[in-house]
Amino acid sequence: MARDLPRDLPGDELRAALHRTADLIADYLEGVERYSVLPSVSPGDVGRALPAAPPAEGEPLDRLLDDYQRLIEPNVTHWNHPGFLAYFAISGSGPGILGEALAAGLNVNAMLWRTSPAAVELEERVCDWLRQMIDLPPAFHGHINDTASSSSLVALAAARHRLEDLEVRAKGLAGRPELPPLTIYCSDQAHSSIDKACIVLGIGQENVRRVASDEAFRMSVPALEEALARDRAAGKRPMAIVATAGTTSTTSVDPVPEIADLCAREGIWLHVDAAYAGSAAICPEYRALMPGIERADSIVVNPHKWLFTPVDCSVLWVQDPGQLRSAFSLVPDYLRTDEPGVTNLMDLGFQLGRRFRSLKLWMVIRAFGVEGLRERIREHCALARWLAERIGEDPGFELAAPVPFSAVCFRALPPDTAGIPEEQDRFNESLLSRVNAAGPFFLSATTLRGRYTPRVAIGNIRTGREHVEALWKLLHAERERAV
Amino acid sequence: MARDLPRDLPGDELRAALHRTADLIADYLEGVERYSVLPSVSPGDVGRALPAAPPAEGEPLDRLLDDYQRLIEPNVTHWNHPGFLAYFAISGSGPGILGEALAAGLNVNAMLWRTSPAAVELEERVCDWLRQMIDLPPAFHGHINDTASSSSLVALAAARHRLEDLEVRAKGLAGRPELPPLTIYCSDQAHSSIDKACIVLGIGQENVRRVASDEAFRMSVPALEEALARDRAAGKRPMAIVATAGTTSTTSVDPVPEIADLCAREGIWLHVDAAYAGSAAICPEYRALMPGIERADSIVVNPHKWLFTPVDCSVLWVQDPGQLRSAFSLVPDYLRTDEPGVTNLMDLGFQLGRRFRSLKLWMVIRAFGVEGLRERIREHCALARWLAERIGEDPGFELAAPVPFSAVCFRALPPDTAGIPEEQDRFNESLLSRVNAAGPFFLSATTLRGRYTPRVAIGNIRTGREHVEALWKLLHAERERAV
Repeated sequence: MARDLPRDLPGDELRAALHRTADLIADYLEGVERYSVLPSVSPGDVGRALPAAPPAEGEPLDRLLDDYQRLIEPNVTHWNHPGFLAYFAISGSGPGILGEALAAGLNVNAMLWRTSPAAVELEERVCDWLRQMIDLPPAFHGHINDTASSSSLVALAAARHRLEDLEVRAKGLAGRPELPPLTIYCSDQAHSSIDKACIVLGIGQENVRRVASDEAFRMSVPALEEALARDRAAGKRPMAIVATAGTTSTTSVDPVPEIADLCAREGIWLHVDAAYAGSAAICPEYRALMPGIERADSIVVNPHKWLFTPVDCSVLWVQDPGQLRSAFSLVPDYLRTDEPGVTNLMDLGFQLGRRFRSLKLWMVIRAFGVEGLRERIREHCALARWLAERIGEDPGFELAAPVPFSAVCFRALPPDTAGIPEEQDRFNESLLSRVNAAGPFFLSATTLRGRYTPRVAIGNIRTGREHVEALWKLLHAERERAV
Repeated sequence: MARDLPRDLPGDELRAALHRTADLIADYLEGVERYSVLPSVSPGDVGRALPAAPPAEGEPLDRLLDDYQRLIEPNVTHWNHPGFLAYFAISGSGPGILGEALAAGLNVNAMLWRTSPAAVELEERVCDWLRQMIDLPPAFHGHINDTASSSSLVALAAARHRLEDLEVRAKGLAGRPELPPLTIYCSDQAHSSIDKACIVLGIGQENVRRVASDEAFRMSVPALEEALARDRAAGKRPMAIVATAGTTSTTSVDPVPEIADLCAREGIWLHVDAAYAGSAAICPEYRALMPGIERADSIVVNPHKWLFTPVDCSVLWVQDPGQLRSAFSLVPDYLRTDEPGVTNLMDLGFQLGRRFRSLKLWMVIRAFGVEGLRERIREHCALARWLAERIGEDPGFELAAPVPFSAVCFRALPPDTAGIPEEQDRFNESLLSRVNAAGPFFLSATTLRGRYTPRVAIGNIRTGREHVEALWKLLHAERERAV
């Protein structure tokens, strides 16, 4: 790759490679179903195929793209495959991909307004669009983080900072005998990122109260009240309650109105984790399943989960961005600017660098429109209901949880349904292995009340009725084969 | 955008839009110098040009791309412009842009080996390539985070966890009278992300010891020893020392060998922040300026800073990844997998979701090769030295700090050099404003020993000798005009 000046690649080479990349992406998305969702590689296969040392000299872009096609593309797990039904299925939709490519071309760091006015103002505008779409009050100010893990960490740090008498920002938590232990409350169905945030914040896992959930996997308010009262009596200081709208296992929704009442009464920060189901809230009928979320102090929704936006895009709204600023803002001399009244994204959390994440979300919302997005969400929920009905009416299967959105938890029943639970668990584990090994689908499992529970999560924009029908046929056939 | 099935865009529309996007990116990079580096917009201009509400119906992709060209591209700060010389200049190089576009098309979440074998194994391999390139021992295991802020937060959380007797993960820090205050040490030149990490971790800003630096802005080891002894005597528990290789203001390098000796003697975690200068360490002569970094417990280098990789790409190496796992690993039922001996990236930090960040770094290293990357780093350092020489020999200017890498801190001297410091500061502020207003360059400033100090940081892959020569002419002319 000899060239006179050591700069970037020559423009004509780059342009040709960009066009080849455009075709690679379009071909991949058109032909993704030729792949099994899970690649058939063993641990170490890809690593061994990669040279142990980096190349001394530059290589032609076409060789890189050849290697990408030969070695990388076939050996990823195909999250963009319509048969990806594990965890929460996500989508790199076409408009989102365009947005990411353009963002990479610009390569701005939107840490300050000055370091990219359009990126900062687009982020504020697009977060406000989404706020309107999910019917939150105008007071909520949104910004975009990489993951819900970061969004919840930032929200809980702000909750800690709001306990002003503790002066945690300045003095920390350690070696202060006058401080009470701090406690956090969430249901036994809440996401592991809440525990991780509490580890990071120095709250400690033992101070995360995993409150029991009811028969529909919703946080029990009496149990929450009891836990709070017990902690108060023991001299502990409740710091925040995390309600989940759309839990990871069953997509259950905690009783937010009652929890919000409690938070208001007790002066406790309410954080709502709507990372998954928040996208469904753009449909009024699903928003109605999440009453009270508008009373949160902070709420996180991940458009990269179910709003067809490539990872990473996690929107955190807070009622009072001043609380994020007072928790985090710290402006070194080399970053001082003097534009009045602007948002500097670096003041809103612990990460200084800020990718131009709003561009892809802007492209997605505009390309599909609010109605188009609603139509897709509704289609996914209808497919989940269709599958739940098949499961519910088939004597060989049972539903394991209600299906409010697009995820279905179920179990196959061994022929002798009086069998011991461990046998039923093994029967389902084995069924799931065979279904995943078949190729066109990838399902995951969870544990509900101690029982192994396969799970279908519909969320990829390319998943349609034909896929869910084929999955049901396969599930049914694999059960028949096993009995 | 009527279509039969509510799925993604039709393949032919997407392909056409991807090709138009390819040209948009190539045109942007070829023509970026037609823009001023800083856009001429006022706060609110872009926001006001965006509709207040989201569109109900989908819009054609061409209209979106038109709006991108009209409203977004001209109003970003042009980090990919060769005249961007502020902060640390970064590059979205061609190969890196290809990698980001392909990653968006795949849209994998590499949280587990199973959720993307190729992404996990490529990440391990590429981090190992870079480890070899900067001559760290094989024991170092690397993974990629979004920002150095996150990397340092993860490293310092692991340092806290290594104080095993404190049981911080389980019990937290608050309300434990038996715990000592925890303290962190870094120089007065260390990055603000260290303070932010300590705020988040519950260490507290007051427990971050900002140790004095010497005349060349390197941490003073006697001052560090004194601070440690004072804290030990007061019953405090030193948790980590953060040495910086390439500080943000002057790119100074702390005396890591002496600091590493101290850490070894006292059993304290050594974290090295080489976010910027770590890239230069791929050249043996610059690696020689950072002796001792191989003795760190953890070290962060950001290829998105000076290794021509688009944001976000921050590599964190640790000597013992088991320490990250024991600090963070927390596997809920729905994420259990059973592949033996694989890396699950979610175990190495607090963020569950993991973008496919290694793809762009792989493309960059292969497209340029190690020698090609070295050549570019050396060219940037040579340009900085050239500028420093011009400044040093011109009686109208003075260098404000040594120039070990590619950043130059300087001041213009008002005609009466006996003038009071405040006057000199205003003279330089005004000079910098005029230089930035001219259009082809964007410089930032820092404060050194209380004095306002303009700064030129060369790091964009498109910056060449002609730009630095033109900058020097402009600086010189603007000073002449002012005196």
